[in-house]
Amino acid sequence: MSATTPFSKISIIGLGLIGSSLARAIAATWPNISVTGYDASNKVRARARGIGLCTRISDDIGDSVGDADFIVFAVPVGATHEVATNLIGHVPQDAIISDVGSSKANVAAILRGAFPDHAIVPAHPVAGTESSGPDAGFASLFRDRWCILTPDAETPPKATARVGAFWSGIGAKVEIMDAQHHDMVLAITSHLPHLIAYTIVGTASDLEGVTQSEVIKYSAGGFRDFTRIAASDPVMWRDVFLSNRDAVLDMLQRFSEDLSQLQRAIRWGDGDTLHALFTRTRAVRRSIVEQGQDDAAPDFGRKHD
Amino acid sequence: MSATTPFSKISIIGLGLIGSSLARAIAATWPNISVTGYDASNKVRARARGIGLCTRISDDIGDSVGDADFIVFAVPVGATHEVATNLIGHVPQDAIISDVGSSKANVAAILRGAFPDHAIVPAHPVAGTESSGPDAGFASLFRDRWCILTPDAETPPKATARVGAFWSGIGAKVEIMDAQHHDMVLAITSHLPHLIAYTIVGTASDLEGVTQSEVIKYSAGGFRDFTRIAASDPVMWRDVFLSNRDAVLDMLQRFSEDLSQLQRAIRWGDGDTLHALFTRTRAVRRSIVEQGQDDAAPDFGRKHD
Repeated sequence: MSATTPFSKISIIGLGLIGSSLARAIAATWPNISVTGYDASNKVRARARGIGLCTRISDDIGDSVGDADFIVFAVPVGATHEVATNLIGHVPQDAIISDVGSSKANVAAILRGAFPDHAIVPAHPVAGTESSGPDAGFASLFRDRWCILTPDAETPPKATARVGAFWSGIGAKVEIMDAQHHDMVLAITSHLPHLIAYTIVGTASDLEGVTQSEVIKYSAGGFRDFTRIAASDPVMWRDVFLSNRDAVLDMLQRFSEDLSQLQRAIRWGDGDTLHALFTRTRAVRRSIVEQGQDDAAPDFGRKHD
Repeated sequence: MSATTPFSKISIIGLGLIGSSLARAIAATWPNISVTGYDASNKVRARARGIGLCTRISDDIGDSVGDADFIVFAVPVGATHEVATNLIGHVPQDAIISDVGSSKANVAAILRGAFPDHAIVPAHPVAGTESSGPDAGFASLFRDRWCILTPDAETPPKATARVGAFWSGIGAKVEIMDAQHHDMVLAITSHLPHLIAYTIVGTASDLEGVTQSEVIKYSAGGFRDFTRIAASDPVMWRDVFLSNRDAVLDMLQRFSEDLSQLQRAIRWGDGDTLHALFTRTRAVRRSIVEQGQDDAAPDFGRKHD
């Protein structure tokens, strides 16, 4: 292990969008790191072998972590408990255990319960696309995106530093945060947007006066922006909502109150309330673009010939 | 006027994103058409002259339509009444009057009231970006997008055909629809998405436990998709909601019911309900991409190095 290579043998459990992007990012950054991949699906493992993902694809979850110094759970958060249970007794004593889940307090508690004597550094790279599976990943997915680490009081600081160096090495910006606070921040910046997008796409599919074909034809008026995130992996997102329930329900309550206020403004013709909000929200977009968290090009840079 | 040139003198009232895109599209398609532009803002008129928009920029709204055979209102729908009032007595008898507003029944009634003896062909090109003003327009904005015409019983079919030929000429796909039905379809495909995006961006700005800086930093988890349309022109959108009030309130009610159902599923840990919806919504995205109404590239084709 060189000074700039944080680990020498990495195991990735789960080879979907995030797991396969991680494997590609590691290969692109540190070709000397040996990466073992595992996925519960035969089909995904066969595909991963076919496209040369990882140094080795293992067919046995216990075997896949046997010599690792860094183990990353890249599974839907609802699968964390089962995967952890299957790994008990197979994880080397000095291996650091981490994950990439979108909720943290719940996942951290499961990992701590299964591995009370290991170094655990829960992680959440805030990056992704609406695509899923081993073919959807790419090496630059995490570049200039934030990766949030949520170590607790039992996490050795050196383990946190190594995991931080790992994410920095593949291009991410690293932040350390309390797991509960993470769950509240992500409930508003990620979980609630997904829930709302899924809802409106569902609402639009169920109208008796407007056909599905009309919804699709005229989607360029705004609706199509919502369909992108409503095309995200259903299992992953089901698990996120169940696992971060309290924070999601809190944010949803606030959103519903705000929506009711706008509903009332529309009903009573109160244009000033609408205009004041619509002016304020422009500034948020400007900041996101200025801080490099989105493309400055209009329309997300969609092509216009 | 050649067989393929539907009009010879066009007046565009309002030189924002849509009006300035129209002027550019006409110049690119039919260089022989004379286009007169007018905007209520001195600053916008000066800028339009500076960038060579239109054949001529007029400083007087009455003068700007004096010799036109096609007059397009490209103003926020709430300004329709005032603009129409100012034009009474100035519109040539055989000129066709049209607009580009996002709501149609209300606008059509105003135009009909002001010009009882003219041919009126209300239009709505379903196209746009989050940018505003005369610099934001571009000639290909309408290409492969739908333009919906909502003629009523009094509209001469020949006038509808000429306006349809105009929009086809600059690359749009033309559809004819009843104004009330238009307002219902657009309430779900455009107006409600904007209202929800504005709401969630507002909600995220008002949290006491999450800072504004955190919302911006972690926006790549989904939130940033909403900020794009919440950066759209505040005056335009205030007017759309007030002008299409009934249809927007109806769609909002349905959306709120569906959201409550998901809220309940999350609270009670009903993963099956969540998974069933999240699977169904994927198909809608697929259809939108297949029908050329959005980019097939993951993440809207945002650049990843």
